[in-house]
Amino acid sequence: MNKRIIVSTIGKIILLEVLLMIPALLVSLIYRDGDTMGFLITMVPAGIAGAAFTSVKQSGQRMSSRDGYFIVASAWILISLIGALPLYINGGFASYWDALFEIVSGFTTTGASILAAPEELGHGVLFWRSFTHWIGGMGVLVFLLMVMPMENDNSMHLVRAEVPGPTAGKLVPRMRTTSMILYGIYGIMTLILVALLCLFGMKPFDSFCIAFGTAGTGGFAVSSAGIAGYNSLAIEVTLGIFMLLFGVNFTVYHLIMLRKIKDALFMEEVRVYFAIVAAATVAITLNILSFAGGLGNALRQAFFQVTSIITTTGFATVDFELWPEFSKHMLLLLMVVGACAGSTGGGMKVSRVLIIVKSFVAEIRQIINPKAIVTVRVNGKPVDRKTLSSTRIYAAAYMLLLCLFTLVVSLDGFDFTTNFTAVLSCFNNIGPGLNKVGPMANFSIYSDWAKVVLSFAMLTGRLEIFPMFLLFARSAHDR
Amino acid sequence: MNKRIIVSTIGKIILLEVLLMIPALLVSLIYRDGDTMGFLITMVPAGIAGAAFTSVKQSGQRMSSRDGYFIVASAWILISLIGALPLYINGGFASYWDALFEIVSGFTTTGASILAAPEELGHGVLFWRSFTHWIGGMGVLVFLLMVMPMENDNSMHLVRAEVPGPTAGKLVPRMRTTSMILYGIYGIMTLILVALLCLFGMKPFDSFCIAFGTAGTGGFAVSSAGIAGYNSLAIEVTLGIFMLLFGVNFTVYHLIMLRKIKDALFMEEVRVYFAIVAAATVAITLNILSFAGGLGNALRQAFFQVTSIITTTGFATVDFELWPEFSKHMLLLLMVVGACAGSTGGGMKVSRVLIIVKSFVAEIRQIINPKAIVTVRVNGKPVDRKTLSSTRIYAAAYMLLLCLFTLVVSLDGFDFTTNFTAVLSCFNNIGPGLNKVGPMANFSIYSDWAKVVLSFAMLTGRLEIFPMFLLFARSAHDR
Repeated sequence: MNKRIIVSTIGKIILLEVLLMIPALLVSLIYRDGDTMGFLITMVPAGIAGAAFTSVKQSGQRMSSRDGYFIVASAWILISLIGALPLYINGGFASYWDALFEIVSGFTTTGASILAAPEELGHGVLFWRSFTHWIGGMGVLVFLLMVMPMENDNSMHLVRAEVPGPTAGKLVPRMRTTSMILYGIYGIMTLILVALLCLFGMKPFDSFCIAFGTAGTGGFAVSSAGIAGYNSLAIEVTLGIFMLLFGVNFTVYHLIMLRKIKDALFMEEVRVYFAIVAAATVAITLNILSFAGGLGNALRQAFFQVTSIITTTGFATVDFELWPEFSKHMLLLLMVVGACAGSTGGGMKVSRVLIIVKSFVAEIRQIINPKAIVTVRVNGKPVDRKTLSSTRIYAAAYMLLLCLFTLVVSLDGFDFTTNFTAVLSCFNNIGPGLNKVGPMANFSIYSDWAKVVLSFAMLTGRLEIFPMFLLFARSAHDR
Repeated sequence: MNKRIIVSTIGKIILLEVLLMIPALLVSLIYRDGDTMGFLITMVPAGIAGAAFTSVKQSGQRMSSRDGYFIVASAWILISLIGALPLYINGGFASYWDALFEIVSGFTTTGASILAAPEELGHGVLFWRSFTHWIGGMGVLVFLLMVMPMENDNSMHLVRAEVPGPTAGKLVPRMRTTSMILYGIYGIMTLILVALLCLFGMKPFDSFCIAFGTAGTGGFAVSSAGIAGYNSLAIEVTLGIFMLLFGVNFTVYHLIMLRKIKDALFMEEVRVYFAIVAAATVAITLNILSFAGGLGNALRQAFFQVTSIITTTGFATVDFELWPEFSKHMLLLLMVVGACAGSTGGGMKVSRVLIIVKSFVAEIRQIINPKAIVTVRVNGKPVDRKTLSSTRIYAAAYMLLLCLFTLVVSLDGFDFTTNFTAVLSCFNNIGPGLNKVGPMANFSIYSDWAKVVLSFAMLTGRLEIFPMFLLFARSAHDR
């Protein structure tokens, strides 16, 4: 491994995090909430350490694919360890592990919280907590590539490890331009959402925090009442639609920018994604009719919860823990599916589910015609063998890890539904689960070490399994 | 598809089932339990239909791989539909669907029951119910190949579709001889078990039924007290060891017969299987120490339940529903793993789990060294690409179906743990689940149509997914 380039890149990421804390610092100064010192105590030493790392001479060396994975995994762990400090120092969390869980949940856009009443935190910390959703959604490394020049091949390795989905796409040949386009679209959409939320009567501070949570498909609210507290149809519908939009593969927006509307509409993953949302909304609406009291209410509740769960945001306007079992089971299924690849959403991703279903059908065809050459096609084009193999291994590893995490967490003694849905929720970066970790509950019930395991599950899910495990691979250190 | 050969083979299978009902008919005559008419009413028309189908002229045609899958899937459905008749006609079941669930559970060696008190059934029906475990364990088609001559290639297609595991192995070049060896080993081991059970004080009738349930890794008991009712350490240990032995790949016994002890010990799947059993037994023993009152009791209970669940038999000597959560979660994990390929056990199979774990490690190695040619090795030999691909697709399809079955069954309104473990239990052919379908409960809570879905899940699990879905493949009918 190329140690110099790794150290120097990680230094840059720490510096970037310090810069990204500045808005929260300003918020804390404006509101005079007493959080300012906590930020400064974190930012000054981190800034010095970051600058020291960055100064390591690189001599223009090239990064290997493995270095890329290593950098991404360790960067995410580091920014979480540092990002948790302001939360811990400013109080409100019982232990550093609680603060770490909260900030990992932030960066990974999970939105699972330790807090029963987030409104008790200062504005600065609340802002930082929600802002981590926004950064984590599109990616820290992608942000870095936008602000700092890097050799094209090197940056491709980083993007491949950080951007979700079975294939990492470049929108344009230069990676730096790609990052700028992505963050540009992301920023503009977020600002439109902030404006709409303000228009519909939400306070500006809340509008920013909730917009960050929506854009990153995170799900942190700023009060214990959550989205239900705003009690506004306009806000709910707006959030529902924007969650859905942030769960779409961003390539679609780039194609629209280039006026390639036909190509945008042709993307199979996106069409399937909308079809799943429509089908699930109809099914749940019918199932909760009597519970919600009338078609209008049922549709409103069903649409919001379906978009919130499939995009892995995790906002809730209703305690779906009280819903009929079929609807709860449907939400669990949506948790596994997740949003589109190349979006800010988590989960398995619609494109992977598509490839898996088509592989299954292809296998059946292959049995019927053993001599035929059966291909799996997405968007009308055959999927290459490497992507097929990776996707299937991913699905199998996904199941394996789900089982193992659940087993480990069960040592805390909670029931199967709680443990399984807690792991499902963390691993898919959603937020709420069922039973003791339902939408109106929080994760404070778990012991410190279970929280560390769940934090690991969140990071593993966000980085799509392989980068985190590469950290433990023996040969990742020995050469 | 070759319709003539399909109809004629299915006719033979029906005839075979009629022949296999004779022992139960005799038992019913001996005990004068009033079940005799129920058997005769089933056997006479089935025998006539079977004879008529068999008489269709085949003119020595060859079977395709697809014909093989089609025959196996429809044969299993047919023998279940016919096999349920004596249960339904003789009473004791509320509906035909209940009887069908029970007999599908029998043939697929699941052992999940509708009955609270099986002892209320007559001896003939009880015998038939347990005997289906024995036939289903090694396979109906394998039995057919033993008693009726068939072209070698044709029989290979049938075996490939019926025998569990990622690869279907021939022990010797001739399929008929292979079947004879398999059923020979199977029969001898079963008889030894019957003798041991009688020796340890079990009634001969019970000994036969329990031995069938053990050999097929089924799990039907003959009384509501189950194995706990015999209250004998000797019986529990004997059953524990024999369950374990029937969960071993039968190739091992063939190798031992040929005095190739070294080759037998070298089989990686079998070594991993024993390692998992040992590790799980130790973990659960430690976890239930205080619950069971002492090390001896804890070890006894842990060993029995671990062997019963990993081999997918499903006998219980203790209500593990009352165990600490970690132990319950561990049992759920063992349910997914299952026994060895080429054994009578169900589940995903140790060899598949092995291939999946190794694929995962290989994928990580591949990322580290993108240019290296990384292979997955089992038993020291590289696994061929087709098996790798099938196994990964199998794992993905497995997860997909688990989700879908659970969603459908949730319409009955039970909680997630009940539904998920009921599906897990049926799909992996185990028997008990957790909560409302725990080891001391039964499946009568579900509605008729949910029972049909669960029956379908059992058949899908037993035939390892693909044959059942081939039935629905459009092109399976059109040519």
